[in-house]
Amino acid sequence: MSETVTRFDVVFEAEGKNTSKFRNDCHVHMRGKAPRSDFLPSDEGPFHGGDGTAPYPLGYFTSGLTTCIMTQLRSFSKKLGVPVTDILVDCRCHWQATQVGAAPYESEGVEFRLDIDLHGDASVEDKKRVIDAAGKGCFVEAILKPGLVKHRLKVGDEWIDV
Amino acid sequence: MSETVTRFDVVFEAEGKNTSKFRNDCHVHMRGKAPRSDFLPSDEGPFHGGDGTAPYPLGYFTSGLTTCIMTQLRSFSKKLGVPVTDILVDCRCHWQATQVGAAPYESEGVEFRLDIDLHGDASVEDKKRVIDAAGKGCFVEAILKPGLVKHRLKVGDEWIDV
Repeated sequence: MSETVTRFDVVFEAEGKNTSKFRNDCHVHMRGKAPRSDFLPSDEGPFHGGDGTAPYPLGYFTSGLTTCIMTQLRSFSKKLGVPVTDILVDCRCHWQATQVGAAPYESEGVEFRLDIDLHGDASVEDKKRVIDAAGKGCFVEAILKPGLVKHRLKVGDEWIDV
Repeated sequence: MSETVTRFDVVFEAEGKNTSKFRNDCHVHMRGKAPRSDFLPSDEGPFHGGDGTAPYPLGYFTSGLTTCIMTQLRSFSKKLGVPVTDILVDCRCHWQATQVGAAPYESEGVEFRLDIDLHGDASVEDKKRVIDAAGKGCFVEAILKPGLVKHRLKVGDEWIDV
């Protein structure tokens, strides 16, 4: 039995401008049928030579990762018929930079953890199904290095790897 | 001749909460010596069943990618002694989702392009050195799948691959 395969594209564009220090003006646009534009500037804090006028670039990244998986948890819990009330996600993103001599440093990811608490009466197995689907549907996770993101599910007072 | 190797960690954390539809409240924190907290909530638009109260999750991701590379372009142009005045970056993020039958869709990255225009009197070779260093230092690029992000540099009226 062959099943229908459907595909759709998701395109975002941005224009960024930096004129001197670390402030980056940045306009972001979702293209396609549900367009939306937002002004999402970044800055560094005084510790790094910036003026602290806006969130860090990695603050935006961290929100993007956290909220993308949350959106898919909500969407796919409905699609899979798994009853979920509140969704709580704690995210921890850990990078390390290495500098040799006076050369510019190079960055790498260390650990990216999403701790997921799905309220409601669903079984642990059903919650795991939702997290598995959400991870595969999450547009941010899909482009990260394989194996980098770890998911944990809250079961009672414990966290279990998913 | 051995050179000194130094390392430093970068940690961001977030707490997200979703109570019903697609609105995700999200508090993001940079940890360490230069802490900062921001409220960066997301929503979907009415087209997707949301209320359009906040940027899309991928809007945050797109700003994070764009502004992270811009910050490193500014930082490393100084470090490498390459004179750069304005920095203009156009970013295009293209994903595709595939759905088989009624199953939840799965996502993948198609093309992620950063078009970089570095103003100032630096040579093309020096600008390429800055872009190469910025790509290696960019915390977002460092955790994306290898080869996914393409950089182009504006030279006169042309764009050249870097």
